[in-house]
Amino acid sequence: MIVGGVQKTTLQIQVFEQIRAMIIDGRLRAGSPLPATRELSAQMGISRNTAILAYERLSAEGYIYTRPHVGTFVAAEIPEETFFTSIGETEPGEHGHDPAHGADFTTRLMACSRVHSLRNPHRKRLTVDFWVGRPDPGSFPVKAWSKHIWKRLQRSGTGLTEYGDPAGFIELRQAISDHLGPARGIIADPEQIIIVGGCQDGFNLISRLLIEPGDTVVVENPCYQGAAFVLEGFGGVLHPVAVDKEGIDVASLPEAPGALVYVTPSHQYPMGVTMTLPRRLALLSWANRNDAYIIEDDYDSDFRFTGSPLTALKGLDRGNRVLYMGTFSKCMGPGLRLGFLVLPPHLADPARRMKALMNNGHSWLEQAAMADFMLEGGYRRHLRRVRQIYLERRDALLASLEQHFGPCNVSGEDAGMHLVWSIAEGLPDASEIERRALENGIGVYAFFSGAALHFGPARADQRHLVLGYAALTPREIKAGISRLASVLRAATPAGSRPLRPEQIGGRS
Amino acid sequence: MIVGGVQKTTLQIQVFEQIRAMIIDGRLRAGSPLPATRELSAQMGISRNTAILAYERLSAEGYIYTRPHVGTFVAAEIPEETFFTSIGETEPGEHGHDPAHGADFTTRLMACSRVHSLRNPHRKRLTVDFWVGRPDPGSFPVKAWSKHIWKRLQRSGTGLTEYGDPAGFIELRQAISDHLGPARGIIADPEQIIIVGGCQDGFNLISRLLIEPGDTVVVENPCYQGAAFVLEGFGGVLHPVAVDKEGIDVASLPEAPGALVYVTPSHQYPMGVTMTLPRRLALLSWANRNDAYIIEDDYDSDFRFTGSPLTALKGLDRGNRVLYMGTFSKCMGPGLRLGFLVLPPHLADPARRMKALMNNGHSWLEQAAMADFMLEGGYRRHLRRVRQIYLERRDALLASLEQHFGPCNVSGEDAGMHLVWSIAEGLPDASEIERRALENGIGVYAFFSGAALHFGPARADQRHLVLGYAALTPREIKAGISRLASVLRAATPAGSRPLRPEQIGGRS
Repeated sequence: MIVGGVQKTTLQIQVFEQIRAMIIDGRLRAGSPLPATRELSAQMGISRNTAILAYERLSAEGYIYTRPHVGTFVAAEIPEETFFTSIGETEPGEHGHDPAHGADFTTRLMACSRVHSLRNPHRKRLTVDFWVGRPDPGSFPVKAWSKHIWKRLQRSGTGLTEYGDPAGFIELRQAISDHLGPARGIIADPEQIIIVGGCQDGFNLISRLLIEPGDTVVVENPCYQGAAFVLEGFGGVLHPVAVDKEGIDVASLPEAPGALVYVTPSHQYPMGVTMTLPRRLALLSWANRNDAYIIEDDYDSDFRFTGSPLTALKGLDRGNRVLYMGTFSKCMGPGLRLGFLVLPPHLADPARRMKALMNNGHSWLEQAAMADFMLEGGYRRHLRRVRQIYLERRDALLASLEQHFGPCNVSGEDAGMHLVWSIAEGLPDASEIERRALENGIGVYAFFSGAALHFGPARADQRHLVLGYAALTPREIKAGISRLASVLRAATPAGSRPLRPEQIGGRS
Repeated sequence: MIVGGVQKTTLQIQVFEQIRAMIIDGRLRAGSPLPATRELSAQMGISRNTAILAYERLSAEGYIYTRPHVGTFVAAEIPEETFFTSIGETEPGEHGHDPAHGADFTTRLMACSRVHSLRNPHRKRLTVDFWVGRPDPGSFPVKAWSKHIWKRLQRSGTGLTEYGDPAGFIELRQAISDHLGPARGIIADPEQIIIVGGCQDGFNLISRLLIEPGDTVVVENPCYQGAAFVLEGFGGVLHPVAVDKEGIDVASLPEAPGALVYVTPSHQYPMGVTMTLPRRLALLSWANRNDAYIIEDDYDSDFRFTGSPLTALKGLDRGNRVLYMGTFSKCMGPGLRLGFLVLPPHLADPARRMKALMNNGHSWLEQAAMADFMLEGGYRRHLRRVRQIYLERRDALLASLEQHFGPCNVSGEDAGMHLVWSIAEGLPDASEIERRALENGIGVYAFFSGAALHFGPARADQRHLVLGYAALTPREIKAGISRLASVLRAATPAGSRPLRPEQIGGRS
């Protein structure tokens, strides 16, 4: 038995090595199809599980890739070293993917996790990290939070020892319902609200409710990786539609009955544009016409610096087309693992049942404390306070960019926690800037490293950098951009003319 | 746009009503196939989404059922009222399912959630509830827990504002690793441990890693619903294998290369038997021979009253075949939403990546407090204390059963938080007893209501009741069983001879 186990493991390695050797020495050419695991197991007289594991490792190490419902193929570029050994040891960009070309689910899954894990290995080496989506650690309301946690713990431990409603703690759902009316123009019964463990959990819940393999799923181009990978992972066929200064180009949406659309109307990820009201109305009209559902990801709508926030799509939704997704990860902290969905009434009960099957809800204590924090008004005050802090940080970033690079072409600066800086012609590509910055302790991110996904011609996504600023003090922001400027100056090839500031990212 | 939305909704209702009418008046007979949603949408000139929603409602209300990868069929028994309106208003048993006959995924999904939601509406009416899997609310270590929570909150809020490792908080994984050696004979590196949000989350993670539609998944018969529904929901084809007094009958396992097996060796759910060492070794041998994986669900192994706990399957696993699952829901409380997987090393990294995609980990504060509680020894002391309390409760239950019903045929009393009481011949079926008890404020559960799934001839699962006792004081247990006895006596038909205690559930 024990020997058998070892033998099987060795068999997987043997299969892996044989196929790898054929790829490396050219017997299997780039792009050529591989047999399905069932065929392979029959051909080689091995179990299907052995075949699957061998393929998994070949895929993990970049030798092959799988297109769901199509097949498995030899990769176009053979990696020099394995993904598993290189993770955390290499620079971003070295493993850069062109998502429009052969970026299959497995690759994306790994890339996604790489992004998630990117921070730990790099953080130590980074002096200033413009990573996206991180709230300010110093602004967390530790005192108020501790008070609410303590009160709940002393008042009652029953929440700790009972299975709760899989849809979430009812008091929190009530508090969210109360908050959404004035804040986002959404009138929702608590029964329509399902507590999720952050956006990823929400994407999974929605996908399991609504996606069947082969269904059309419209995404913004560029879009957020975390959503795209899940929607695709459940068999959705991604249909990217361009984003312009008004949001997703609704006129370019396909007429696709029963489709699902994923949008970020308040602050498009990554571009940061706000979907205009005419576009919102047109999108809802399209959804009604196509019997389609819309996922409205409202991840950082609490931070709008210019004008008042537009009513959420969900607030305009008379046809019960919109599944609204909010999160406490940005406005409070991702360590809480709390977010919520507002669903059309007819989907609330199926969603609750699916939630029970998925993970049966979330930590009672955080939900209870969050409910109390919202109900006593602390949450509204916290949002006001943090909005002011983030505004100062955004201003510091804009001022620093202008100081060092001249007037800059930026997008998404009216709201949120990040902006996109369009790289001027003549400067290196985003991944190259990212690499050089990283060597010098500065984290700035090309789209793919910055959790964004661009569909289209290779390298077209290389002219933008994503800069998150919410977690950095103005002093850190100034130091970071100053350092970035000197890095880019120092990188000018010897013998070339000295760079003028406006040549580096400035408008001509 | 708005009118369009209403029209579409109305269209769904129209389609639903038309098909329902045809079923009710017999034009569509029981068991006859319905067109696929794509065909239906073409036939009726409606969108596929409309067809899907109409089918969903027909299925939800029990008129039709779907067999994954087979088709949709008219149900054998037409419900008198809708499931959605009846939930919480009816007694368990009225919606009893025979899981071996036409229990498709949708039905099971709803049934599963019904079980989860069963407690709330009933709890209010119940004087004594022998529901399974509930820990004692009074035993939660509120003081120690509050101390650890408070210390973590004061020491550092960064865990609240950072995205953590999707595999879980490393200090907790270390603490679990330290605990598992002496407690369960498992030597595991913290890198092999993935924190999950309870068992359901773990089942989903494993299913997404290992199950492809059509794969053979062996389950115990009877087995735990929460696992079976997920494994089946991801396309696994359930292959039930009988459980006897030594655990799953390994000799009856199919030779199925690449299969997955789900077992509960420490305290089989629901029967409560402990898998013997020879069976454990045989199961591992089978897995190595078949290149199969084993899910070892060790949900309540902390509470063993007789003898010392057997080493976990995972502790005997030399072939890297076992995925071990532990939970803090039983020994601490389900409100924490914390559990963990111990994976074969080669699956740890894929699991971590999948976890990032699924929900990106769990609440930092609970993980940090749990780590501290384990590391300072409080957890071990807590387990010892609770084990003693549960032992007293088990003894109270056994004594009460014997007092009122004479010597009883019970199973699973050596460990855990519940036992199975085999109903003597001449007494009503389990669902009937459950119904009568419920009318009198007592919660006792037939298999299907008690989160267990029995495969086989209809009603063969009706001769057992599942009785959870961990959350009830000895006084409550005595009162509950006494009341149950008088309920069953009172239910004796008029004119029949008075019942003797040994006639009610006693051995003949």
